[in-house]
Amino acid sequence: MAITLYDLAGAEPDRRFSPFCWRTKMALAHKGLEVETIPWRFTEKDRLPQPNQGRVPVIVDNDRVVHDSSAIAEYLETRYPDRPSLFGDERARALTRFVQNWTETVLQPGLVGFVVLDICRHSAPEDQEYFRRSREERFGTTLENVVKDRAARLPAFRDSLAPLRRTVERQKFLAGAAPAYADYVVFGAFQWARAISDFELLAADDPVAAWRGRLLDLFNGLARKAPGYGS
Amino acid sequence: MAITLYDLAGAEPDRRFSPFCWRTKMALAHKGLEVETIPWRFTEKDRLPQPNQGRVPVIVDNDRVVHDSSAIAEYLETRYPDRPSLFGDERARALTRFVQNWTETVLQPGLVGFVVLDICRHSAPEDQEYFRRSREERFGTTLENVVKDRAARLPAFRDSLAPLRRTVERQKFLAGAAPAYADYVVFGAFQWARAISDFELLAADDPVAAWRGRLLDLFNGLARKAPGYGS
Repeated sequence: MAITLYDLAGAEPDRRFSPFCWRTKMALAHKGLEVETIPWRFTEKDRLPQPNQGRVPVIVDNDRVVHDSSAIAEYLETRYPDRPSLFGDERARALTRFVQNWTETVLQPGLVGFVVLDICRHSAPEDQEYFRRSREERFGTTLENVVKDRAARLPAFRDSLAPLRRTVERQKFLAGAAPAYADYVVFGAFQWARAISDFELLAADDPVAAWRGRLLDLFNGLARKAPGYGS
Repeated sequence: MAITLYDLAGAEPDRRFSPFCWRTKMALAHKGLEVETIPWRFTEKDRLPQPNQGRVPVIVDNDRVVHDSSAIAEYLETRYPDRPSLFGDERARALTRFVQNWTETVLQPGLVGFVVLDICRHSAPEDQEYFRRSREERFGTTLENVVKDRAARLPAFRDSLAPLRRTVERQKFLAGAAPAYADYVVFGAFQWARAISDFELLAADDPVAAWRGRLLDLFNGLARKAPGYGS
């Protein structure tokens, strides 16, 4: 029986833009597990199976409900040990957390300032008010103001990718010759941006763009085929 | 026969402050290998065994000369496979490179602006002119100017440690329950600062300070016993 995934969707139900859900979708594909996704909106807290924290991803595997992308990755690794490992050995799993923490404290906070207004525009009508209010409260200003100077912030953002750039210009994936969960965590952030914004984050000749292209190609183009911008 | 390590020293021959040499010293201790260090100064290019690139660390293991801290770590792992691994599996080795690239593009460039004048002051008299000239050329200003506003830069520097902080507040070491080369790479940068500067980089209650303390304690306090500032 396929695993069910509650997956954040925009006004168009096929536009899936949660970076955390992308982690999970890539992890499920890595494990070769079938998945059926259910489009879900920010305001549909009541539609999620219990237990949950009012956020996605949430998966249902037979009668087991697991929420939170990190908990889901751990669950899949433990529940399906004979399928390709998401992490590698214990040290690789520990180091994956550093990559994840870099993604969550540097990459995603950097990205949101470029795409937050685009997220709002692509959100379902019933989500837009909730999204705008919660994010404007967080930023202390309008979403329009947040993105106004985004072009000027681009060079600093690209500089902030130096650790990623230097790694993937010397090896195909963060995890080495083959991709693993560390790659999916970082990629999820880029796929979030790609799904809802036409703003070009990366220079065409950036090794990070080439790495992103390799991730877009994985699993028969799972991420590339998903509605989004760019090639 | 003990391995010989050419190790950057200050005016006092026991003050060893190269972050790259600290990586190597921790790696050698991790492997349980005996080492004899030879204090070396920036201007003593001719005293290094061939081949080298005019920089330390350089090690001599029997008749084999290896230079560059990364090449030395790879060499030790290959040459002494039965001793504790520096990396773990191939994925952990690949992810260690991300940690290293973060250290070299974020941490060390951040740190140098706090300690560069202290490095100059602790350098051997014959090194000081070379050091000041090469670094002032790089910064485009005097070393005094570089460090003048360092207190004002401290909050941003501490913020830049977020990926490290968030990782080591949830696990003992970057590599998990036990330390590995990824830890030594990051630690080398802090040990560099500690060896030559009394400027307090970390708040006392910072989880990064607790992690650094665990590294200082390793191998019977190898790094803690080395001449430096702080507890």
